[in-house]
Amino acid sequence: MVGRRVKELLLELADAVQHAVAEIAEDPAEVLGRGADGAPSTRIDRVAEEAVLRVLEYEDARLNVLSEEAGFVDRGGDATLVLDPIDGTHNALRGVPAYSVSIAIGRSRLADIEEGLVRDLVSGATYYAAKGHGAKLNGRPIRVHGYDPKDLLFSVYLGTNADRDAARIASLARRVRNLGAASLDLCLVARGAADLYYMHSAVPDLRLRVVDIAAGTLIVREAGGLVLDLAGRDLDLPFDSSARTDLAAVGDRRVWEAIR
Amino acid sequence: MVGRRVKELLLELADAVQHAVAEIAEDPAEVLGRGADGAPSTRIDRVAEEAVLRVLEYEDARLNVLSEEAGFVDRGGDATLVLDPIDGTHNALRGVPAYSVSIAIGRSRLADIEEGLVRDLVSGATYYAAKGHGAKLNGRPIRVHGYDPKDLLFSVYLGTNADRDAARIASLARRVRNLGAASLDLCLVARGAADLYYMHSAVPDLRLRVVDIAAGTLIVREAGGLVLDLAGRDLDLPFDSSARTDLAAVGDRRVWEAIR
Repeated sequence: MVGRRVKELLLELADAVQHAVAEIAEDPAEVLGRGADGAPSTRIDRVAEEAVLRVLEYEDARLNVLSEEAGFVDRGGDATLVLDPIDGTHNALRGVPAYSVSIAIGRSRLADIEEGLVRDLVSGATYYAAKGHGAKLNGRPIRVHGYDPKDLLFSVYLGTNADRDAARIASLARRVRNLGAASLDLCLVARGAADLYYMHSAVPDLRLRVVDIAAGTLIVREAGGLVLDLAGRDLDLPFDSSARTDLAAVGDRRVWEAIR
Repeated sequence: MVGRRVKELLLELADAVQHAVAEIAEDPAEVLGRGADGAPSTRIDRVAEEAVLRVLEYEDARLNVLSEEAGFVDRGGDATLVLDPIDGTHNALRGVPAYSVSIAIGRSRLADIEEGLVRDLVSGATYYAAKGHGAKLNGRPIRVHGYDPKDLLFSVYLGTNADRDAARIASLARRVRNLGAASLDLCLVARGAADLYYMHSAVPDLRLRVVDIAAGTLIVREAGGLVLDLAGRDLDLPFDSSARTDLAAVGDRRVWEAIR
């Protein structure tokens, strides 16, 4: 599965999730069990994941799956679909209009992701990137924002569980936004809306997982930006439910230098 | 003009803005002049305001207008339409998916606003309230969030122009979001998505105007919440292009007490 067929499959998966979530009749917040990392799985998470797995069966797609809910599912494939069926579950349940489905395809780690798609489930916007072919929003190429130190817009993870440096970094930007869904905050950097997405958690268990960032990381990089660990290296992470990371995504390396 | 007819007019105005903005073919960011308070007016602001004024002419609506762009327009009415044709212009131009049209009807000040409507121009969601009749989102009643000190979600205005207390307040919440459009941040409180929207600017010229908050304030209050000045009194403000304010909107008074 390469090229056009993969893109079509990713779009079909996103459509299936969008449709399944819109059709939920019972309480979407009801906890139905635990996900692969021990976090509670709500109905909205389960419904979204099941929609993806059904399409994979129907299409007879030979892909393994690494998902937030089910963990690693060996389906006899060479490649693995890295899936967060609902990124921003808390937003979806409380009514913050920022949640998405994030889907990527790779082999074993973030650095070898070949294609990624993030669908904003509120607006319906679709962000997509294929390695070496740039990033698109609803089919139109997107680029990161040019560096302008007087017009910085940062998305910063804040609150009781943020590292102390987060408040200092937020204070450096003319404008601060935060959507609270990593895939969408990464896409803000990719489309040039934000100059930085900064996530530094004081609580190791709340750091980002590869399922949250696999698609968004490729989309930022293909839009001309950088996704770094907090030592300033290009971020990498294995396909592993238990691996977690902080990160800084920037449109321009000078933003990274400005916040250090 | 009262009751049902006003609601229908507000909906017609929101539809007109949504349609006009979607049809913009030239650069929406081009600066075409100065608004009533001296801030630059871009094409998207102008197009949205002109769409409203055209509908008012067409419907022969006897309403004065107080708008971000045109200032006060005396159209021989008893009541005044308080309008921000695009709240979140910067978001719209940079690609942050959070901007709205905010429309309210009253006589002379925030406290006498009778009806208010906020249309999220990205998702199409419509928030509406009539004094004494509650608040609705897409026709369904909404309520503020119950107080739970362990599950606080705050929207806080941050960055270089925020007052120093803003970072401290953000650090008190389990989760922090910010949309950067006052009418939409107020609506997050009204629908129970956020427990607090806190705007405390260190720069007087960047404080909120009545056009930004007229509709959202009524929507929060009708959803059971409080919109306070930073002395903790119910916020009021005259219909005046030059009047500006900070504010704290809360779902429950205990949130206000917790952040002081």
